[in-house]
Amino acid sequence: MSTNSLKEFMNTYKPQIEEELVRLVEQIQTPASLKDSMKYSLEAGGKRIRPILILATISSYGKNPIKGLNVACAIEMLHTYSLIHDDLPAMDDDDLRRGKPTNHKVFGEAFAILAGDALLTKSFHLIATDHSLDQSQRLEILSSLGESSGAEGMVGGQLADLEGEQKDLTLEELESIHHRKTGRLLAFSVVAGAIIANAPARDIKLLEEYAYHIGIAFQIQDDILDVEGSEDVIGKPVGSDESKVKSTYPRLLGMNGAKEKLHYHLQEALRYVNGVEADVTLLKELAELIANRTH
Amino acid sequence: MSTNSLKEFMNTYKPQIEEELVRLVEQIQTPASLKDSMKYSLEAGGKRIRPILILATISSYGKNPIKGLNVACAIEMLHTYSLIHDDLPAMDDDDLRRGKPTNHKVFGEAFAILAGDALLTKSFHLIATDHSLDQSQRLEILSSLGESSGAEGMVGGQLADLEGEQKDLTLEELESIHHRKTGRLLAFSVVAGAIIANAPARDIKLLEEYAYHIGIAFQIQDDILDVEGSEDVIGKPVGSDESKVKSTYPRLLGMNGAKEKLHYHLQEALRYVNGVEADVTLLKELAELIANRTH
Repeated sequence: MSTNSLKEFMNTYKPQIEEELVRLVEQIQTPASLKDSMKYSLEAGGKRIRPILILATISSYGKNPIKGLNVACAIEMLHTYSLIHDDLPAMDDDDLRRGKPTNHKVFGEAFAILAGDALLTKSFHLIATDHSLDQSQRLEILSSLGESSGAEGMVGGQLADLEGEQKDLTLEELESIHHRKTGRLLAFSVVAGAIIANAPARDIKLLEEYAYHIGIAFQIQDDILDVEGSEDVIGKPVGSDESKVKSTYPRLLGMNGAKEKLHYHLQEALRYVNGVEADVTLLKELAELIANRTH
Repeated sequence: MSTNSLKEFMNTYKPQIEEELVRLVEQIQTPASLKDSMKYSLEAGGKRIRPILILATISSYGKNPIKGLNVACAIEMLHTYSLIHDDLPAMDDDDLRRGKPTNHKVFGEAFAILAGDALLTKSFHLIATDHSLDQSQRLEILSSLGESSGAEGMVGGQLADLEGEQKDLTLEELESIHHRKTGRLLAFSVVAGAIIANAPARDIKLLEEYAYHIGIAFQIQDDILDVEGSEDVIGKPVGSDESKVKSTYPRLLGMNGAKEKLHYHLQEALRYVNGVEADVTLLKELAELIANRTH
């Protein structure tokens, strides 16, 4: 299994996603200051893992990934709104994100809140008006996005995370929080790709399991990098979680235990995705990328 | 034209909307603290003008208003999210809303931001999964909601309002801000009702004009009440706009000029809605109610 194909895939589609994100914001009729705030965070970089997961899933079924471009932009907008709101002083109070000042540090809190609200709203609007998809595909994707990102999913996970910050969490509680906060949007991404590709229902279940495990792996690696990484590479103060006495995988399992757990979830992800009746090379490489990333 | 029928209509449907709002939040699988924060603001009262507009429009076409119950709850959730976020310290910094402490005063800023995010997300999800509507109705409504409430509509209006706070605005600028901030969601409400009732396209244009004028009338009356009302009745400090040297209708036109303008927009609303080929008695009474309300 070479990593050439994933690298090539990302080199092809990441710039297209990033151009389209900017284009979509540019064409909104709204004060320039709001567009600037929205674009600032959309352009702040990142791996674009969620949109790439959508396009890679479509590609696994031999379909043209570009059919998922709008939904890919929608999920990146939604993810970006969540970062903007999470960084606010009342929430995680972060000054830096990917090595750049956070949105509210540049545009002020009011604009950061509104830019987040606008991105969240645009995300649903973009899918509802994507005429390259069937009506039933759009509604299925919207329904899945609503569940994954709302009170039952990401927003609920963020709240549980805030509530759990000063508590000792069990491994089960920690996983449940991370699954809602991160895992469910990753799962949404592969499910949306599968819906766009008209994948069979059986595959969707397997892909959800795959996404569940890469979501946990993603978070464990995040915790490990927070201890081991250098501030220069990961773009936020190292040990920032440690200083808040927050429950993390290395804290609960020790560094070796956390690394074993990461390996386990990577293997589980690969096991599930191997059951999918499609060419899942890219999805397997994505799982390895997530587990082995250095930032 | 008696006001009995509107009173009766509201007495019948307002409690049903309010019960359904609570029921919808209760059934979400999420931490109780998030539900409490969402319910607190949903239960804070108010006239429920937007959901009533939806149901009244459906009723004008002789259809069962209950067909619009989910969309009515969705618009009230979306309106409520906008109030929660607008009241935040970084935005309008209001401690009271309808005579009760604002959401962040009770639950803290983090929970207020997240409750708003969750309500916004639920609003779109509710419409996407409303199986009593055709797929095309759902998508049309979702598309309209996205435009009315996002950067091009309400969120853009709130931002322009914040930017305009310390500036002298022309009447045209003031109306443009209010149309986006308030008018577009009122227009959405009648349009959504018309879509649910399968109204002809020609009527939808007239209903949009009607909603435009009741939106402006609503805001003028708001400004007038802010000067003339007593704190006890309207539930927020009287003259709060005045103290910020904010552009308002009485400030730009004088109190008499503002009242004439209010009368003009009410008449325009009635003129447009009279052209609609349906029994628009309720919608005419609603326009009068908005223009003559005392709080």
